[in-house]
Amino acid sequence: MGANTFGTKFCLTTFGESHGEAVGGVIDGCPAGLLIDFNMIEEELRKRKTASTSTSSQRKESDKVIFLSGVFEGKTLGTPIAFIVKNEDARSSDYESVKDIYRPSHADYTYQQKYGIRDYRGGGRGSARSLLPCVVAGCLAKQILSSQDIEIHSFVTQIGEVKKDSFTHEEIQALLQKVKEERDTVGAAVRVEIDNMPAGLGEPYFRKLQAILAQAMFSINAVKGFEYGEGFNAASMRGSECNDAFVNDNGKIRTKTNHSGGIQGGISNGEKIYFNVAFKPIPTIMQPQQTVDVNGKEVVYDIEGRHDVCVLPRVMPIVEAMTAMVIADFLI
Amino acid sequence: MGANTFGTKFCLTTFGESHGEAVGGVIDGCPAGLLIDFNMIEEELRKRKTASTSTSSQRKESDKVIFLSGVFEGKTLGTPIAFIVKNEDARSSDYESVKDIYRPSHADYTYQQKYGIRDYRGGGRGSARSLLPCVVAGCLAKQILSSQDIEIHSFVTQIGEVKKDSFTHEEIQALLQKVKEERDTVGAAVRVEIDNMPAGLGEPYFRKLQAILAQAMFSINAVKGFEYGEGFNAASMRGSECNDAFVNDNGKIRTKTNHSGGIQGGISNGEKIYFNVAFKPIPTIMQPQQTVDVNGKEVVYDIEGRHDVCVLPRVMPIVEAMTAMVIADFLI
Amino acid sequence: MGANTFGTKFCLTTFGESHGEAVGGVIDGCPAGLLIDFNMIEEELRKRKTASTSTSSQRKESDKVIFLSGVFEGKTLGTPIAFIVKNEDARSSDYESVKDIYRPSHADYTYQQKYGIRDYRGGGRGSARSLLPCVVAGCLAKQILSSQDIEIHSFVTQIGEVKKDSFTHEEIQALLQKVKEERDTVGAAVRVEIDNMPAGLGEPYFRKLQAILAQAMFSINAVKGFEYGEGFNAASMRGSECNDAFVNDNGKIRTKTNHSGGIQGGISNGEKIYFNVAFKPIPTIMQPQQTVDVNGKEVVYDIEGRHDVCVLPRVMPIVEAMTAMVIADFLI
Amino acid sequence: MGANTFGTKFCLTTFGESHGEAVGGVIDGCPAGLLIDFNMIEEELRKRKTASTSTSSQRKESDKVIFLSGVFEGKTLGTPIAFIVKNEDARSSDYESVKDIYRPSHADYTYQQKYGIRDYRGGGRGSARSLLPCVVAGCLAKQILSSQDIEIHSFVTQIGEVKKDSFTHEEIQALLQKVKEERDTVGAAVRVEIDNMPAGLGEPYFRKLQAILAQAMFSINAVKGFEYGEGFNAASMRGSECNDAFVNDNGKIRTKTNHSGGIQGGISNGEKIYFNVAFKPIPTIMQPQQTVDVNGKEVVYDIEGRHDVCVLPRVMPIVEAMTAMVIADFLI
Repeated sequence: MGANTFGTKFCLTTFGESHGEAVGGVIDGCPAGLLIDFNMIEEELRKRKTASTSTSSQRKESDKVIFLSGVFEGKTLGTPIAFIVKNEDARSSDYESVKDIYRPSHADYTYQQKYGIRDYRGGGRGSARSLLPCVVAGCLAKQILSSQDIEIHSFVTQIGEVKKDSFTHEEIQALLQKVKEERDTVGAAVRVEIDNMPAGLGEPYFRKLQAILAQAMFSINAVKGFEYGEGFNAASMRGSECNDAFVNDNGKIRTKTNHSGGIQGGISNGEKIYFNVAFKPIPTIMQPQQTVDVNGKEVVYDIEGRHDVCVLPRVMPIVEAMTAMVIADFLI
Repeated sequence: MGANTFGTKFCLTTFGESHGEAVGGVIDGCPAGLLIDFNMIEEELRKRKTASTSTSSQRKESDKVIFLSGVFEGKTLGTPIAFIVKNEDARSSDYESVKDIYRPSHADYTYQQKYGIRDYRGGGRGSARSLLPCVVAGCLAKQILSSQDIEIHSFVTQIGEVKKDSFTHEEIQALLQKVKEERDTVGAAVRVEIDNMPAGLGEPYFRKLQAILAQAMFSINAVKGFEYGEGFNAASMRGSECNDAFVNDNGKIRTKTNHSGGIQGGISNGEKIYFNVAFKPIPTIMQPQQTVDVNGKEVVYDIEGRHDVCVLPRVMPIVEAMTAMVIADFLI
Repeated sequence: MGANTFGTKFCLTTFGESHGEAVGGVIDGCPAGLLIDFNMIEEELRKRKTASTSTSSQRKESDKVIFLSGVFEGKTLGTPIAFIVKNEDARSSDYESVKDIYRPSHADYTYQQKYGIRDYRGGGRGSARSLLPCVVAGCLAKQILSSQDIEIHSFVTQIGEVKKDSFTHEEIQALLQKVKEERDTVGAAVRVEIDNMPAGLGEPYFRKLQAILAQAMFSINAVKGFEYGEGFNAASMRGSECNDAFVNDNGKIRTKTNHSGGIQGGISNGEKIYFNVAFKPIPTIMQPQQTVDVNGKEVVYDIEGRHDVCVLPRVMPIVEAMTAMVIADFLI
Repeated sequence: MGANTFGTKFCLTTFGESHGEAVGGVIDGCPAGLLIDFNMIEEELRKRKTASTSTSSQRKESDKVIFLSGVFEGKTLGTPIAFIVKNEDARSSDYESVKDIYRPSHADYTYQQKYGIRDYRGGGRGSARSLLPCVVAGCLAKQILSSQDIEIHSFVTQIGEVKKDSFTHEEIQALLQKVKEERDTVGAAVRVEIDNMPAGLGEPYFRKLQAILAQAMFSINAVKGFEYGEGFNAASMRGSECNDAFVNDNGKIRTKTNHSGGIQGGISNGEKIYFNVAFKPIPTIMQPQQTVDVNGKEVVYDIEGRHDVCVLPRVMPIVEAMTAMVIADFLI
């Protein structure tokens, strides 16, 4: 299986560089007869486009999805669903200046080491844009989940040093605006919850539910940490406080607490699944940085342009999409 | 691919319940001509057997590996390497009392929900013992790595609320002994470092090096969190402090700092890889606990017997083994 | 892995219905730095378009390949190579009449049974056109092979009851013209040879070279038989006549005869690989046929229109392409 | 996925050399709760042991299956089912004489070329014995099929130049005895039929039912040809005679004829599936043969000992087992 394919039954293969013709994907294994909610797809893509700061001037893309196959009269055929989103606003000339430079904490150097060639324009395959196809596939996955009432919710829980259970849109904007003014970028963390999970999803040993969720999250650019249930906090706990007692809740077996995060032995137990994901700051900052060029010569890298200061809020639909694909894959 | 198989080229398939005939594995894809270091395997298995507290009376298993195939005159043939470790000290009668009980925070309930049947003896497939075959495969993987001078080191960094860069054997014993006396168990955290990594390992998009490392770690029982590089701390950081400047170190391109943890864009950059893994407390505690039986009736679960109070130090060889398998799989 | 993906390292995922927006594919795992021979691709696609009879009026498609990703300045990036060929001449209205009919020996009925829905236009996913993406991927595979001097040749060996070692273009045309005049279609057989094979390709047990070649050939529509080396004839032979003696040919170990067809134990031995593929007649004939409609009512199915009378010669580039992909996948 | 694994849901991984400790397998994905028919397994293994000629002195193996995991109180657990059959009568010293020789039309040379090492004893991994585990897995697959009334039957249709619809046991013995007396071996062909197939199994494009059946058959040693439905005969046919008209058979859609062999567009149509498999003569003959040694020196290879003269009848349970696994994998 190629490294750009995710899933075992609901399989997404993605493709596309930031400044190539298009980004897109092929979904193989989506059940036949699903009436596609094109509005939901548009809405999720719109969220992904929303800039992290209202004042920033972002890349202008219509981000219109074109379905090429697998759909007939609005319904899935059971055959591969290919779709593309064209890269319209690809001002590649902007990138001539970075052609020969390895930007700090970007993937320029590692791609060059691995492949001996790279598309330096806009981050190429390593760009955030290349994860856009996950959002489209995630929408189909969500439709599969919603037929079982499974719901995915995500919350911002941290921006830089500020941690809260949730942030208002205005709070996020204010925090990010401040970072922007300092010509810097900032990290963040997100919490995801999955409600109405059926028990029994997940496959020991190497396809434990948490293992595949983790793989999915770490496929997202800038993710540095993943924890579920009590997560890292569990390392500090005693068994007597961390264990989830089983109770009989009107004939249904439930747990009294949910330190486990809805998964035991790699299999969902029917309780809410919840996990946290940590993101590093976006590496493109509006400050001069020391680095080297492709010949190893030390240079100063300094840019102007349009850039986000945080993966938030654009990363939210991607986090949800990857989550949805994992659950749908186990559910089918 | 089955859920009990890990890897794409160096593939391990594991099998075995705690109280069945044997646990074991099949390694498919190990390069031919490798002279197997049987002593290293014995030594790693011995480490896995070592009880968490010196005073505890653990299961007596000789844990002798029997190779069934794929090895000829001490060397790998390139054909599948099957091996087993017999379950000798399987006092299954001990488990009659838990036959009908769902132990809190164990996998009894979820296995029953998923499969409609379970081997209740000693945790069955959900037992820690069932990860033993990973240690054997990890030894072969380590041999592949050492031919390239790649080294894996692991350190205990947290036991319950005590966090340190490293612990002496005596410190670990003292901390665990205290927990044992309180008839409780405790969580822990471990740090892993990989030295002498070549640049270029890892495959965007869905087989990023960190994604497969995360999948590997979450395949281990009791793991609740994984972070690499700055990890969750990165969420608090600014880009200007988190970025790793490239420098020319006597003709070799290096990074000045290593907040990235040796991976950029899902591909190793040649710096040290490091990551942290958090474990929850072992759920079997020597205290009465509320739970339900298989009929949903609420009961009190209380046991005596031999049990660890922490995944440490026995989990260390497993953590290293899974790490080695991931790197070997990308290296081959 | 999805059912529309072929290969383990050089992986092609195909998509597309005959009358959808486009057919296309994504190649994941093509080595980086390959300078793509676009002319070869055009030429192979032209061969695939060539009608089986010069007088027939075929579908008019420009069959121009558009590469969407994975290629930069004419070279492969090592990232997924997506490409599409638009379906331009899709006169779907032609197919309204067959919307409710299960055409004999077509896939209409089985697709409906499997998926509960089908794109009835032009055979949908079951059309010959949907294999077009294999030709494109096959061209890249051939380029990989030619760097090692491996060559693939294919020959027509049978058209209906006429068997010959090879046919001239005129002979093929004459035979097919006669069938066309009788408003019928006809089967055929093809022989493929692979020259300059290195020894050592193929992987016991379930990825034997012949097993994957067979899977590849039976992925092609209308294929009913596959044999390699002596093939079905071997059933009539004695060991003493079928065995290939090894000889020392000026320092190189060769076989004196090649009844084995270049493969022993599932692994290439360095001799010429050869195999035969049999095709059934195209099921669309210009004669009234008995069948049923989607409600099970027996009806007479009778059409006019543009149709081939044989898979030849259009199937040749597909046969070669699938062969090339198999060998490239083992070679990489 | 390793090359020694077959199947996507019902996955068998095999291991074992002819003269190693054991041959065996791991079945991952067998549904939980299946009551294993151990008698059927013994009976099928007995058939596999039966020598091709009553007078021959065959290897003495008890061929007793030992289940190591995945089975509890006679039922499958849903966890991996590992099993072994020990190699008891491994008189390896018999093989010292062939240690340095490449036997004609055996896999000695190709294994050496691929791996640089081989277990020369009894054919090692390339021996017929190494397919034994397929028989065990096939029995479980057959049990899954029989719950749906699907039946697999196989028939000998050719021994050397004698072709018949079926042979009596005595006829087979007589033909093989004659070959044995001539100190030679002989090829054969087998026909397989699958009755009571449901419609809808098989997955376009690359997992067409016939493609996976073909892969399965060519995984069996000595197979040189595979055809289904009309097979190679279809190349001689006209569409008007090869097409299968649909009819309404008392409310059920059926085909009037079954030239298609029960598969259309890669998906079963509910009719009988039938296919033919051709086997070459066993390469070990009791006559001196020219060959080379590992140093390339031309030598005469001449042996005495116990050897079959035909893959029949021992190959029949293997053919059926592989067929059963393919169908079970699509059915699950």
